[in-house]
This record gives sequence, C-alpha cells and structure tokens, in this order.
Amino acid sequence: MKKNQKVEDLFLQMKDTSELMVDLAYSALLFNDKKIAEEVYHLEDTIDDLYRRIQRFAVKKTSKKNPDMALALIRLADSIESIGDSAREIADVVLRDIEPHPVVKMSIRESDAVITRVNVLPKSILVNKSLGKLRLASETGMWLIAIRRGRKWIFGPDENTKIKNGDILIARGPEAGEKVLIKAAKGKLRKL
Amino acid sequence: MKKNQKVEDLFLQMKDTSELMVDLAYSALLFNDKKIAEEVYHLEDTIDDLYRRIQRFAVKKTSKKNPDMALALIRLADSIESIGDSAREIADVVLRDIEPHPVVKMSIRESDAVITRVNVLPKSILVNKSLGKLRLASETGMWLIAIRRGRKWIFGPDENTKIKNGDILIARGPEAGEKVLIKAAKGKLRKL
Repeated sequence: MKKNQKVEDLFLQMKDTSELMVDLAYSALLFNDKKIAEEVYHLEDTIDDLYRRIQRFAVKKTSKKNPDMALALIRLADSIESIGDSAREIADVVLRDIEPHPVVKMSIRESDAVITRVNVLPKSILVNKSLGKLRLASETGMWLIAIRRGRKWIFGPDENTKIKNGDILIARGPEAGEKVLIKAAKGKLRKL
Repeated sequence: MKKNQKVEDLFLQMKDTSELMVDLAYSALLFNDKKIAEEVYHLEDTIDDLYRRIQRFAVKKTSKKNPDMALALIRLADSIESIGDSAREIADVVLRDIEPHPVVKMSIRESDAVITRVNVLPKSILVNKSLGKLRLASETGMWLIAIRRGRKWIFGPDENTKIKNGDILIARGPEAGEKVLIKAAKGKLRKL
C-alpha cells in the first residue's frame, strides 16, 4: 500500500471495481457461468480493501480539520461498496445453484455477447505481447475488459498493456471469437 | 402494463435500468453534472415499478405451486433494486451539492469520455431518422446509450431505432462530439 496514493485514485479504483462486478454478475447470471461468478468474489476482496483504505484516510487525514468532509468521503465509499455487495448477491444465485434457478428461462438476447474468463498459459502466443500489437479486438472480435494478474486487476487495458504468462483475461465478444481466444491462450494456436 | 409480459423480460429490463443508473451516477459524479444525476432519479421510478411487478408476479403466479421459486425471484429482484438504490445515493452527492464536495478534486481521466443529455427539438435534423441512417457514432464520435421518451426508456438503441421529436438522448463521447450533437438536437445544424 503506497502511503501517498491519493484518495481520488482510491475512489476511481472503487468505481472501476464496482462497475466490473456488476458487469460480471449479470453476465454470470445470463450465461449461468460459475467461473465468471467467481471473479465477482475476487473483486469483492479488492473493493473491501479499497473501502477500508478510504475510511482510514478519511478518519486520519480529514476528520480533525473537517469532520463533514470525512463523513462525505465515507458515505460515498459506502454507496460504492453497496453496489459491489449487490453484485455479489447476484453472483451468489449462480454460484449456490439456488434451485429452482430463477433465471434458467432468461432468454439470451442477441445483444448479449458472451463474456469469458481465460487463463494465459506459458506457451501461448499472447504472452509478452501488447494489445496494440496483438490487435485482439479486430482479429477475434473479443474485447478485453479486464486482466487479473495475481491479486491485482487491470481495468480497461489499452494498446500498451502487455499480456503476461498466468494472466486471467476477462473478455467479451461473439462465441466464435471466444473459441479462438481460448485456443490462443492455451498455446494451441500459432497465429490469431 | 401488459398482462402477459414475461417475468424474464421484467428482469432484463431491471438489469438494463440498474446498469444505466450506475453508469449515469458515476458520470454525474466525475463531471459534477446535475442533469445526468437527475436522470438517475427518473430511472429509479422505472426500476421501482419493475420491482413491484416482479413481486406481484412472484406472489400470484408461483407461490402456491412453488414457494421457493417465488422467494428466489423476489430475492434476485431485491439485489438488482439495491444496485439502483446505491446509484441514486451517488447521484445524491451531486444533486444535493453536499459540501465540501468530496470529488471536486477527482481528476477526469482521458478514458472518461463526456456523457451528455440532450433534448431533441422539433426542427432538429435528427427527428424521424433512424440511427443507421444518421450514422451518429461515425459522424460525431457520440455513442447513444439510451433514449428517454416520456416515461419510457429505450436501452441500447440499434440502427433501426428512430429518433423522435421530444426525445431525451443520453450519449457518450468526446467533448467536440457533444457540441455537434447539442447543436444538431437544437436544430442549429443542417448536416452532421
């Protein structure tokens, strides 16, 4: 934990985390996908950690000078954390296999592109290449929305982001693209 | 209210509504934009209405045959509604001008495109044209994420969606594109 990390950065990270949690929770529900639902749980650890850091910042740095400011910061962080909690509840429906599954009949719309989680293996052609070089979106139709690297998350990776061995990629796109991405990540494809 | 509307459709509408509320609440916060924050309030009416309809469906149609199913439906709707509540709390920070505004210093990142709300006037060139014909995204860089038409919302409009006089457009894109869109909606532009 960097001591000088600005509180605004913590808020932006909380925002990104909560948005991804909602996105993944609904995708898990639509596709009845337990792997995606599990990612919501991973993200909850991240958001809880950020929440505690904002609380600590608010109490330490602002409360003496400005108690209202401290309360406003905590209240805002609390609202963002609640979004994460609700997303986790939705993921729960998928993970716990609550029977009868209330959304089994939820028809997938054409606009609901597949969301997928893939593990990048050492021999994959993706390893150590930047997204700009790989042109993943134009070659496969799959849009990389986040990367989990150990306990760290990269939200909205850009053309300079390099994929590493062991990365967990969270991507969205057509089913055909999903198949190509899975093969590429496993090292079963030499060219996208 | 259509009697035969399927419960799955109600859930999909709740999902879309909650996602848009989160999106708009954060945009309102980042850009300190009261007009966008107000849209979150409008959407809360929509989500509350859907929530009540799902509850009514669950109790009437499923509870005798299958009380667990009814509870599962209500619990899921409850989680989705909570996302909307949290989004509204975030919009509150902007609307109530809670001082000192905790996010005044929240630096806008380059990736945070402007989100805007524009009112389509009768003399606008947009009126009665489909998005496919207008090519709004390619001409202006502005991506239409939703349309509010009276009390009705159109989420994720497609190329066949026609813009009508009086529509409220919610769009995202670069600042330069926002200016063009506002002029076009006001009827001050004869060509995109």
